[in-house]
Parts: sequence; structure tokens; C-alpha cells
Amino acid sequence: MVTCNKERLVDKIVTFSKFGDTGRGGITRLSLSKEALQARAEFSKRMKAIGADIVTDDMGNMYATIKGSEDLPRIAMGSHCDSVIQGGNYDGILGVISAMEVLETIVTEKIPHRHPITAMIWTNEEGARFDPAMMSSGVITGKFDKEKMLASKDTEGITFGEALDASGYKGDEKNRMNPKDYKAYVELHIEQGPVLEAENISIGVVEGVVGMVNYEFRFRGQAGHAGTVPQKLRRDALLAASEAIQYLHRELDKLDSKLVYTTGRINCSPNIHTIIPDDVRFTLDARHQDPEVIKQVVKIIENIPKELAKCEVSYKELWSRKTVTFDKELVNFVENAANLYGYSSKRMYSGPGHDAQYVADMLPTTMIFVPSIGGHSHCEIEKTDDDDCFKGANVLLQTILQIDKK
Amino acid sequence: MVTCNKERLVDKIVTFSKFGDTGRGGITRLSLSKEALQARAEFSKRMKAIGADIVTDDMGNMYATIKGSEDLPRIAMGSHCDSVIQGGNYDGILGVISAMEVLETIVTEKIPHRHPITAMIWTNEEGARFDPAMMSSGVITGKFDKEKMLASKDTEGITFGEALDASGYKGDEKNRMNPKDYKAYVELHIEQGPVLEAENISIGVVEGVVGMVNYEFRFRGQAGHAGTVPQKLRRDALLAASEAIQYLHRELDKLDSKLVYTTGRINCSPNIHTIIPDDVRFTLDARHQDPEVIKQVVKIIENIPKELAKCEVSYKELWSRKTVTFDKELVNFVENAANLYGYSSKRMYSGPGHDAQYVADMLPTTMIFVPSIGGHSHCEIEKTDDDDCFKGANVLLQTILQIDKK
Repeated sequence: MVTCNKERLVDKIVTFSKFGDTGRGGITRLSLSKEALQARAEFSKRMKAIGADIVTDDMGNMYATIKGSEDLPRIAMGSHCDSVIQGGNYDGILGVISAMEVLETIVTEKIPHRHPITAMIWTNEEGARFDPAMMSSGVITGKFDKEKMLASKDTEGITFGEALDASGYKGDEKNRMNPKDYKAYVELHIEQGPVLEAENISIGVVEGVVGMVNYEFRFRGQAGHAGTVPQKLRRDALLAASEAIQYLHRELDKLDSKLVYTTGRINCSPNIHTIIPDDVRFTLDARHQDPEVIKQVVKIIENIPKELAKCEVSYKELWSRKTVTFDKELVNFVENAANLYGYSSKRMYSGPGHDAQYVADMLPTTMIFVPSIGGHSHCEIEKTDDDDCFKGANVLLQTILQIDKK
Repeated sequence: MVTCNKERLVDKIVTFSKFGDTGRGGITRLSLSKEALQARAEFSKRMKAIGADIVTDDMGNMYATIKGSEDLPRIAMGSHCDSVIQGGNYDGILGVISAMEVLETIVTEKIPHRHPITAMIWTNEEGARFDPAMMSSGVITGKFDKEKMLASKDTEGITFGEALDASGYKGDEKNRMNPKDYKAYVELHIEQGPVLEAENISIGVVEGVVGMVNYEFRFRGQAGHAGTVPQKLRRDALLAASEAIQYLHRELDKLDSKLVYTTGRINCSPNIHTIIPDDVRFTLDARHQDPEVIKQVVKIIENIPKELAKCEVSYKELWSRKTVTFDKELVNFVENAANLYGYSSKRMYSGPGHDAQYVADMLPTTMIFVPSIGGHSHCEIEKTDDDDCFKGANVLLQTILQIDKK
């Protein structure tokens, strides 16, 4: 059976790893930065070399399209080329590289296909330079207000709009992905978690993106000098927060074992070793594919004692998202594609968010995951074995070809 | 019986509250700042007005001395005029004001006394501008190296030595307080805690400064994406830290009820709501007058589990101090003085450190505490009733007169 070209695939991984190379194995390639523009130019160069037609839309999203044998809507694949600060060489860019590799394979192997096929780059997925994440897929699917997004500033005060104008990649709104001109979207991505590696599985068949809630808890006590206030008179907000963390773990651990939850950020005031803390906040991020489980999480949050360690307890929802379910037929195609090659696969939900979750509102969409060594991501040691990258690209190829046939 | 002049005392409190007034009821009067120099000038003006002789030593400590009827060593009293950022109008400065008031009373009431009597200001007690706290009493009692202290920098890069040179208050090393020329030292200070107010007592008879230990605990886990790492595979350093806080409270609460301990500072890395914390540190400050109790605290620290929530647990001592016991005869004098006026009093240890604890190594020393409303200190709402300030000044007066007689 036809496969992608592993050597050519790895060459692209190596080449793109130079754009923003930190010298420590990772990259810093913020959206629309010089390094990101180098990556876009490389994408452009290689796609032009196979005769793809390249356009950008008004958010800078890049589309490289090869013609099909019939006048049909396009099948798209892709991901993003921006990274977090000191990120790795796989998050996002592997989805772009795999899409390029699939187009190159189709062209060089002269694989017949009825639909035009597009490899693409989404602008500013990470949100590491311009808040929020998944900005451009969010704009073209109506999640975000475009004018507000253009006004989003980086730490130097440069707006997204200014950076986009300066990049040379700002195109026409009519080039946006849309339900009329596009048939389906498939995104390959690293898992960014340890499950596939731990279970020695090559392909994650992604059924959707889990719903989540994000809350902030706040504990208000009374500051005082560490040396003067008798213990029994204290209202220590950090003690209250530690009791709340224990409460949440105790109660949330009773729910479904697929629930993941994280108390990732804590801020303590005044945070001085000789002063009793009077104001502590921490966040709770909880994710599960089943909205019923998320409801149980919210009930546990709502049942937190109103007072802990004599401190006032309050909480608020910072944000949430509903579970996104991918197109069942496309999910089956991914599973079939893995089976065709004899690769082990596992159905799973994505914990992190991806552009695909916004696209799913507009087009039949799915994702393919490949293993992350050690589960590491958003760090310089982020790594996926060349073999797994190759397997992922092959599964992407066969998925696209199945979509093309239907 | 003779008393201080309440009106004159309150006038000084009001006057000094202008030097560094934040406009919100408190002051910011960092050591050797313009505002602190205004306070020193006011001290100088008022002390000159009663005929006191004023000198400074090489650390900028100021001494205003009235002569005695005999050629005897001096009896000194005082405190500091610097504050923390957004501090109150009583911490430190009330001890200076009371010392001034006692000298003014002795002079205006022509109270006979054999010894010269000195009102004084210590430089940089708070350490809020130049680290460390109690810098100048520390230098003249050999706790700190003078050259290192002169090199201590504020946030703008100005050294203590440069600020001292520019202040005009740098004097001669021979003017330092010393055991040959000084007989005793008494410092009046606000309690900075809630005990006196809670028990409706006017005077704290301070027997010493409690010993303390300060430890930092560290928890090392594994970072990971909030959405991808199954709960059972996590090594969450904040969960470990919250378990450690619970452990410390559970175990330390079994010790003597006079033990005070505080987990005041916590730092979490990377402290991002979507990432599992991999490195968390918090401090433990524990104070008790009995070294045996401190030993029990250290044993509890040493017995902390080496692993919590699958994270590596470690700890280190940041610093410690031994209990300082004040001169028993002087302590009795303070208690007698309160009794003379019919003021309620209570023997207690100081939790916070004070210049007096260093002076105690060199001279018979003690302290007088007055109540802090709500126990508040190091904040703008810090307050002691005028009545309590007046009572404190009277007790200081009678304590000095008793020392003078012996």
C-alpha cells in the first residue's frame, strides 16, 4: 500500500525546527514573528514546488491547494506553525508538515483524487503572543469578534492587526474556509499527554474535544504578624486554600476515572514569610467528555464549605467549553486507516483545545493523535518518534483518500 | 504622681504622622528617605528645645541626651522612625515619641535624676529599604559586618552607605552605644498582635523575644497538560504542598498552645491554570520562648514524609534565632511602674524581633508593649489608642526613674 516518504517527512521536521531554534532542542516561534514567517515561507516554497495554489485569508490563515479531477469542494488538513515560548518541535507544526507530506505524496505518487485537497496553516493557535488561543479559527467560525482580535496586543504593545499587516500574509476574507467550498477538515496533532505512549499505541483516533470548566476559588482571612497572633485567633487564607484543595481532590476522585482536573495556579497575598496570608486564590480546571460528569464537578464546587479555617470561601467560573464531538464517519475513517496499515489505535478524546474544535461547527471534522514521549508538550523536550510521525502521516493520507472516495 | 503630658504626646503622634503620610491613614517612611529625614529633623528640633545634646554614630543612630546630676553611664530609651511601605503611625515611632516625651517631662517637671538619660533613633530597623532588618543595632552589637551593610542596596541600586552619606546623619563610631557608657536600654513598642486588646490589658511587660526557626519546604513533581495526564499518573506538587500544610498544622497543633507558626509564602511553578504544578515551595515560620518547644517543631519538620502525592519532599532551614531573655530586674521595674499607676499588665514574650534583642547582648535591656487595635501592624490601619500611648509613656518614665535610683 502507498505510504508517505519517511525521509522527506523527517527532512521537513528537521528543517522547520531551525525556525526559532532555541539551541536547547526546542523553539520559540510566536505567531507572526520573524521565525513564524520563515516557517510560512518554507511551507510556501515546498507547496509551490508541487504545483499547489496558495492563498491567505483576512486572518492570515494559509491554504495550499492541489486540484482534484472533479469540480468539488475541498478536503482540508493542517494545523498551526506558531509555538509557545520555549516550546517543542511537534505541537502544531507536525500537523502542517504531515499535511504537506500528504500533498507531496499524492502529487509525486500521482494518486487519483476527485476533490481538491488543501494543506493549511492556522494563524495564532497558541495565543502565546496575542491572546486568545485559537484566534483565527475562532474568528472565521464566528466565535470571536474580528475587530477585537485585531486589537489584541503583544507584550511590546504591537497589535495582532499591525503584525498581520506587516507580515505580508494578510489576504482576502473570501478565501476563508467555509462550508460551501470545503467538504471536511482533518488535523493531525501530537497527543500532548502520556496515554498513547503508556499503552504502546501508535494512533489516537480522536472522537472529540472534552468539555471543561475553569473556576477560581478565593479565600479571605485576616493578615497578621507571624509572631504575635495566637494560633486560635487566626484566619489563615492559605490554610483555608489547602483544605479546599484537599476537599476538591477527595470529592472529585469519587467521580469517573476519566475526569482530569488541575489546581494549577495559586496566588497568595501578601506572600511574605512573616505575615499570615489574608487573600489566596487558586484555579480549578476540570475536563471530561460527558457533560453529566462536568455537572457533577460543578455540584462539588457548589458544595464547598462557605467557610474554611474561619476564612470566607468564594468561587467564580472563569470560563467553560462544551464537549465537541467530531464527525462519526470521519472518526471511523481514521480508525480504518490505522487498521489498513496494521497500526495499533485507540479511540480517545482530546483534553487540550485545537482549531479543529471550532472548525467542527462548520464542517465534518476529526483529528489524529500521535504519541508524545513522556507526555511532554509545551516544552523543549517535546518529542514524537520519527516512526510515529510517519505512521500518523500515513493515517492522514488514507483518511483523506477515504473522504475523497465518498 | 508625676505623669507625662498627654496633649504634648498626642501632638507628637500627629506631627510625625505627616512625614510620609500616604493620605490613607498610614505612612511610607523608608529608612534614610526624605520622609525619614523629616522625622529626624523634628526629633532634633524638639530635643534641642529641651537642651538635649545630640550626636549620631557611624550607622546614623541618633542619641539625644540630657545630663544627670552625677557622672554616671547613660540610661537609654528609643526605637526607630522608619516604616515599611504603607505602614502605620505607631510601629517604631511610638517608642521614639515616648522617649522624647519622657525626656520632656523630666526636663519640664524638673525631675531629679542621677544618670544622663538618652532618647534615641535606630537606623533602618524595618529593613524595608535596605536588607536586613535591625541593621544598625546589629552592626554595633557585632551581629552584622558593617562593610556588607554599607553595600546593601535598595531597589533603585542606592547603597545604604550612599544614602547614609547623603543624609547628613553619619557620625562618629565613638558615639555608638556601648557597655561602658550606657547602663540600660528600654524600648517601648506596640504589641503588633491582638493579645493585650483581647484581654483588655494596657501594658505588656516584655520578658524577652521568642526564639524562632524559618524553614522552606519544596515539592517536586512533574508538569503536564491539565487536559491530557490521567489523574492516577500525576505528580502534582501543589497537591503535595497542600498535604504538607495539613500535616504541619495537624502535628504542630499538638504542641504548646503558645507556639505560633505561619506558612506565609508560597511559590508555585509554572503557576499556569492549564499546567500541573511541578515545583512548589512554601515557608514555615515557628516561634516559641521555650527552646524545647522549638526542638519539637524541628522534629515534626524532620518527620515530614519524604514523598507526598508522589512528589519529592525536601526542606531547609532559612534562618533561626535563639530566645532572648531580657534583664529580670528591668522587667520587674516595668511591672512595678504599671502597678504604680494602677494599669493592668501582663508578662509576655515578643514574637517579632526588635533592636532591643540585639542591645540585650550588651546592656541590661527590656521592652514595654502597648495594645494594637485589632492586632494590626505593618499596615495603614495600625492604631493604638491615645490613652494607651499615654499609659505606655508613663510606664516608660517610671521605669527609667527606677533604673536611675538603683
